Amino acid sequence: MPVLATPTVHLPEHVITQRETLDLAWRLHAGHPKIRLVTRMIEHAQVTKRHLIRPIEETLHHSGFEHRSTVFAAEAKKRVPPVVEQALAHADLAPRDIDAIVFISCTGFMMPSLTAWLINTMGFPSRTAQIPIAQLGCAAGGAAINRANDYCRAHPGSNALIICCEFCSLCYQPDDLDLGSLLSNGLFGDAVCAAVVRGDNNATGVLIDAQTSHVIPDTEEWISYAVKATGFHFRLNRGVPDTMRGFTPDITAFMRTQGRDITALDFYAVHTGGPRILEGLREHGGIPNDKLRHSWNALTDHGNVASVAVFDVLTRIAANPPGEGAVGMVAGFGPGVTMELALGRWTNGNIR
Amino acid sequence: MPVLATPTVHLPEHVITQRETLDLAWRLHAGHPKIRLVTRMIEHAQVTKRHLIRPIEETLHHSGFEHRSTVFAAEAKKRVPPVVEQALAHADLAPRDIDAIVFISCTGFMMPSLTAWLINTMGFPSRTAQIPIAQLGCAAGGAAINRANDYCRAHPGSNALIICCEFCSLCYQPDDLDLGSLLSNGLFGDAVCAAVVRGDNNATGVLIDAQTSHVIPDTEEWISYAVKATGFHFRLNRGVPDTMRGFTPDITAFMRTQGRDITALDFYAVHTGGPRILEGLREHGGIPNDKLRHSWNALTDHGNVASVAVFDVLTRIAANPPGEGAVGMVAGFGPGVTMELALGRWTNGNIR
Repeated sequence: MPVLATPTVHLPEHVITQRETLDLAWRLHAGHPKIRLVTRMIEHAQVTKRHLIRPIEETLHHSGFEHRSTVFAAEAKKRVPPVVEQALAHADLAPRDIDAIVFISCTGFMMPSLTAWLINTMGFPSRTAQIPIAQLGCAAGGAAINRANDYCRAHPGSNALIICCEFCSLCYQPDDLDLGSLLSNGLFGDAVCAAVVRGDNNATGVLIDAQTSHVIPDTEEWISYAVKATGFHFRLNRGVPDTMRGFTPDITAFMRTQGRDITALDFYAVHTGGPRILEGLREHGGIPNDKLRHSWNALTDHGNVASVAVFDVLTRIAANPPGEGAVGMVAGFGPGVTMELALGRWTNGNIR
Repeated sequence: MPVLATPTVHLPEHVITQRETLDLAWRLHAGHPKIRLVTRMIEHAQVTKRHLIRPIEETLHHSGFEHRSTVFAAEAKKRVPPVVEQALAHADLAPRDIDAIVFISCTGFMMPSLTAWLINTMGFPSRTAQIPIAQLGCAAGGAAINRANDYCRAHPGSNALIICCEFCSLCYQPDDLDLGSLLSNGLFGDAVCAAVVRGDNNATGVLIDAQTSHVIPDTEEWISYAVKATGFHFRLNRGVPDTMRGFTPDITAFMRTQGRDITALDFYAVHTGGPRILEGLREHGGIPNDKLRHSWNALTDHGNVASVAVFDVLTRIAANPPGEGAVGMVAGFGPGVTMELALGRWTNGNIR
C-alpha cells in the first residue's frame, strides 16, 4: 500500500504582513465603495503574513503575461530542486528511484512542463512519466496525492514524486476591482512543495487507504479563471463561502463507506482556502475546531498557498506526529467546485 | 485488464486544402526569404486538407487571447458532447458508469477544466475524478491512454473516459514568421475525440498489456510554447525531424522486455506529427512503411491534430480490424521531447 511521505514546503524570502496588506488596500483603493468591507474581511481572515517570490513593489507592477511567464519559469527552476531533494530524502529515495512526477501549478503555464527540465537536470530516469496538472487550482493538492497513489497502485513497487509550484503573486491583476479580487489580493501567498508517494509503504507519513472525488453540481462559476492577454484572472463567486455545506454530506457518506466518522478522525489536513472553509468544516461537518488548528495556523502564517496548502498542513502534523495507525484525511478544494480527498493512516514505515 | 475501446473522432466542418494553404503562404509571405523552402516543405508533408472550427478568414485574424479563450470554451461545449456520447456507445456504457475523465488540450486553457461542465451537463457522477492535462502537447494522446489505464488498474472495475479537444487554429499567430511557425501553419488541424478505457475489458479495442514513457535528454527546447499576451506561441526547433532517432532505441528495448519486436507488430497507431516522424520510424525503427499507412492517411486527410492524432489512426485500424490477439502499439510524441507508448492486443471483447 502506497505511503505519502512527509512533504517539504518552501516559503519564498519576501514577506508581506497583514498590516502592510491593509495599508496597501487603503492606499490603492481609498475611493472604492467596498473598501471598508474588504479590509474588514481581510482582517477577519487573520493571515498575519504571506510570502512572495519577488519584492512587493515588483509584485504590484504587472510586467505583462509574457514577462511573468518567464519569471515563473526562472523562479521555478531556482526554487523547485532544493525542495525535491529534501522530499526525496524524507522518503529515503534517489532520483533514479522515481517512476512518475506529478507536477501541479495553476499559476504559471509552461510547455513542456517543468518536469522535462527536472528529468534532464536532476537525474530522474528518462522513462519517468510526466503528469502535469494545471486546471484544478487549490483542489490539485488533493488530486496530486490521489493521482500519485493511482500510479503507484497501477505499477506495484513504483514511486511517484509530487511537486506543487504556486506563485499566486504572478496572477495579481491590479485592474481587477471586484470584491472577490480585492479579497484574493489579501489572501493568496506563494509557496513550493514536494512529497513522495512511495509504493512500498516504507516511509513515515500517511498510508493511503481510500480516496474520493466530488464536484458540487452547477458550481462551475464559483471559482474560475478568466484567461486574458494579461494572464489568468481569478474570479471568486459569492457562493464560495458555502462550499462546505456542499461537500460535507459527501465526506460524511464516504467516511461511512470506509467505516469512519467524519467528526472523529485523529488528524485533518484540509485546504486552508480561507476562514469560511475551516468554519464550514466545523459548522456543517462537525469537525472539532482544535483538530483544524494546523490548518488555521497554516492560513495565519502563509495565507492560501493553493495546491501547496494541504502539504503545508501535513508538515505541521508530521512535526508532532500522531501515533502509529492514527486515522486522518487530506482534502483539497478548488474550482469545479471540486474536492479531492484521501483517507489514510499515519505510519512510521514498515507496516502492512 | 483494461481495454481501450474504439474511439470517436470529430472533424470540424470548415476545410482548408493544401492548395489553399500554399496560396495563402504565397499571398501572406511573398517577400519572406524562406518562402520557397516553406512551400516546398508544406508540399512534401502531403496534407491534402485540414479541418477548422471557424472559417479561414476568421482563423487568420487574431481576435486576442481573451476572445480566443471564449471561442475555445464555446466550441468545446458544442463539439465535445456528441463525440463523448458515441465513445460511450462504443464501450456500451452510460455516463453513470464513468469514474474518471482524462481531459486533454494544449490549445486552450480553462479553469475549471471542461470536465466540471461535462459532469454537470452530461450526467456523469459527481464523484467522477477529473484529470485535466494541458502541457504534454501531442504526446498527450499516448499519455491519456496510459493515465486512464493507470486509473482503471488502480481501481479495479472502474472506467475512464478520455477526451482530447484540440483547436490548433486558435494558436495561429500571424506575426510569427520563423521557419518553424510557417511550417506549423501548414501542418496543424483541429479535431476532437473521445474514447473509453473500460476496466473489465468487455469492449472492442486494444487490451493494454504494458506502457512506457520516455524523454530524450536535453531536448526541452525542441518543441515548446512561448506564453505571451497573444496566447500560446508554438516553437519548433530544427532538431525535431530527428526525434525518431532518439526514441526508436528506447522503443526497441522496451519491446524486447515485453518479448516483442518493434519491427514485427501487427498494427501501429503512432502520432502523425509530420512526414519526418513517420519516415524516421521506418528509417531508425525498421517499421515497415505499409504498417504506417493509417498514420500516413490520417496525416494526409487531417494534418497533425495534436493529441487527437493517435485516436484518428485507431479509428482507421478499427474500421478494418486486425484479428483477435493481434499485437500493436499506440504512441504519442510531443514536447519534452516526450513519448508515451502503450502496448496491447486487439480484442473483440470478453477475452482474458
